[in-house]
Amino acid sequence: MIHVAVFGYGTVGKGVAEVIDRNNDIVSSASGDKVSVKYILDLLDFPGDPNEAKIVHDVNVIISDPEVSIICETMGGTGAAYKFTKAALEQGKSVCTSNKELVAKHGAELMKLAKANGCAYLFEASVGGGIPILRTLTTALTAERITQIAGILNGTTNFILTKMEEEGAGFDETLKKAQELGYAEADPTADIEGHDTARKISILADIMSGHFTDSDNVPTTGISGIDKSDIALASKAGFKIRLLGIADRADDDSVSTVVAPFMLSKSHPLAGVCDVFNAIFVTGNMLGETMYYGKGAGSLATASAVVADVIDAARKGSSTMYPGWDDVPVKARNAAGEKHRYMVRFDAGNSDKARALFEGAEEIGVCEGKFGLITGPADRIDTGNGIVENVIEIYE
Amino acid sequence: MIHVAVFGYGTVGKGVAEVIDRNNDIVSSASGDKVSVKYILDLLDFPGDPNEAKIVHDVNVIISDPEVSIICETMGGTGAAYKFTKAALEQGKSVCTSNKELVAKHGAELMKLAKANGCAYLFEASVGGGIPILRTLTTALTAERITQIAGILNGTTNFILTKMEEEGAGFDETLKKAQELGYAEADPTADIEGHDTARKISILADIMSGHFTDSDNVPTTGISGIDKSDIALASKAGFKIRLLGIADRADDDSVSTVVAPFMLSKSHPLAGVCDVFNAIFVTGNMLGETMYYGKGAGSLATASAVVADVIDAARKGSSTMYPGWDDVPVKARNAAGEKHRYMVRFDAGNSDKARALFEGAEEIGVCEGKFGLITGPADRIDTGNGIVENVIEIYE
Repeated sequence: MIHVAVFGYGTVGKGVAEVIDRNNDIVSSASGDKVSVKYILDLLDFPGDPNEAKIVHDVNVIISDPEVSIICETMGGTGAAYKFTKAALEQGKSVCTSNKELVAKHGAELMKLAKANGCAYLFEASVGGGIPILRTLTTALTAERITQIAGILNGTTNFILTKMEEEGAGFDETLKKAQELGYAEADPTADIEGHDTARKISILADIMSGHFTDSDNVPTTGISGIDKSDIALASKAGFKIRLLGIADRADDDSVSTVVAPFMLSKSHPLAGVCDVFNAIFVTGNMLGETMYYGKGAGSLATASAVVADVIDAARKGSSTMYPGWDDVPVKARNAAGEKHRYMVRFDAGNSDKARALFEGAEEIGVCEGKFGLITGPADRIDTGNGIVENVIEIYE
Repeated sequence: MIHVAVFGYGTVGKGVAEVIDRNNDIVSSASGDKVSVKYILDLLDFPGDPNEAKIVHDVNVIISDPEVSIICETMGGTGAAYKFTKAALEQGKSVCTSNKELVAKHGAELMKLAKANGCAYLFEASVGGGIPILRTLTTALTAERITQIAGILNGTTNFILTKMEEEGAGFDETLKKAQELGYAEADPTADIEGHDTARKISILADIMSGHFTDSDNVPTTGISGIDKSDIALASKAGFKIRLLGIADRADDDSVSTVVAPFMLSKSHPLAGVCDVFNAIFVTGNMLGETMYYGKGAGSLATASAVVADVIDAARKGSSTMYPGWDDVPVKARNAAGEKHRYMVRFDAGNSDKARALFEGAEEIGVCEGKFGLITGPADRIDTGNGIVENVIEIYE
């Protein structure tokens, strides 16, 4: 019997218990022995819940039980989750997590600690929910030099951008709708301002480079500045707007990361990714372009990824570890002087001034009272001139 | 040093040599030792080729060389490739292949032989070229019960269908263009009649079920019956036509497979897969829908997948084997009585008769001199009435 404990009985934690229960034959057969949830750590009781009897409030009950060999950490945050993860790894218990914040911040240290204790720290579910991107990068694309990873990594923002386009609606009303549907949290800041995407692209950059990218240092622009006129103008010019996290690697192994709304040609595979779905576009020097698409969040999809890690930990122990990354900050790629194309938005009343400012730019015309130009190649667009309202880079 | 031999110095074989050469630092580091191509088996000489000195004509030189531990079989076919693969596996040499025909026909036997000799038979490159679908199914989606796999698995036919749509062109002229561009072979039968797709969906069904699906028994319809009016009518109704291979698994583990052109809603992720790209749409009972997209063929993309197998064989030997399948034919899923929707095409002159035949069907109207109806749910459409010209099922 493989005894598992779940830390945190929220959306993902409940999903983990459900996947282990409903797919028990598959999970046990793949793990080489019967898998069973012995404890669930939570501050609350869950009277009437089928797993009520497994709830414990004291982490030490779990840490000190030698029968428990694998922990699923689905608490989130970098406080108690960090402390409890360290305690579990120190006891040689593998930890499988969906906690992107903790992985982005302390992943290198926790993988090192796991290795020293003959167990594993695994986090497939921390990026792209149900999309097996980390395993793909580390076990499938092994003959490749990965040169770029670009992803739609946040379902809330992708839902908002998709709905704004479909319904010609504004940002505020669409955010409100997303909140009503449960696709956005009451405090949506981490999603809409791009911080969630920054954590995920940092983890992908860490895996790609073998060194550390601090998500706090990723230049990050969210989608709250996207006006419905931006989406209408983009559509008129053959583009869709998507919030992307991008990690670019140069020949000298330096890496740059960015999070921002980008204009994508409608024929690009990422442009077809709608609603709460996520997708990660990976470019390798031999493979060319590949893309991995699926649910970025949700109880069962994310839980399935956590349980896939449980199976790997059960089957292979510490030998299943990713080629991880060290604490050394990755060498920053110097992007100065690189030229990009941009869409620039103005008030329609300023169209003459806009034409004068951006001579030779391609005119999109007027939509929703706004005037759009596509300009570049340029290294950046000056927004301090009093008439430029928004600038969105074209991904190409 | 890990000594590799390549069987067959064609498109993929040359790619394997190139990937091992150009990405040697990555490939060697991932394999745990320096990887080097020692021999290339081919009937021809390649004077002036950088690998000229490695060419041998006698397979026994390779089979009897104890230094060679891994073979890349990129010959294709089930004749010499089968014989040479068996000889290599019997000597304990792992074989990594792109040969879908051989895998579809003798995969179970060759995996068994590999296991008995402590080596591996690996074939990531045999399905979806550069898309790591087999490793995803067997090492990433391990907590899932896979219920359906539906794939665009042939680049030639997808290129033809995409171009027919973009250019409003007929089948014959587009096939000719594909041949001129090198995207279709001089004898294109295996591609356009769906046999290539049948082999690939059989391998995916084998992996999904653990039992054998004979690709010769897969009901297979190619794209040569697709008229440009079908594509125009489909487009008018909000659909694209794609050649899909589909494997469906029922609750009792019975499996049905089919290869045919299907109508896909334009908003479906598979509908956005254009030109020579491939994509595989996988549905799991917990994950929901995921999709894997990339180049389905091509020298370097396919070679990258072969070399990823080489790395796995070098690193893990026989323990890297897929959970394979046995020789027992999979239980056939009984699809009798299942209702589907269809698009039916008629000559425009028969539109009144068509309406009478399919009362209540949704009219698409007339395009390119043809009249279209969407009908169903029905279990099948009678084409023997003298006026139905083509029937295409709607994928949903």
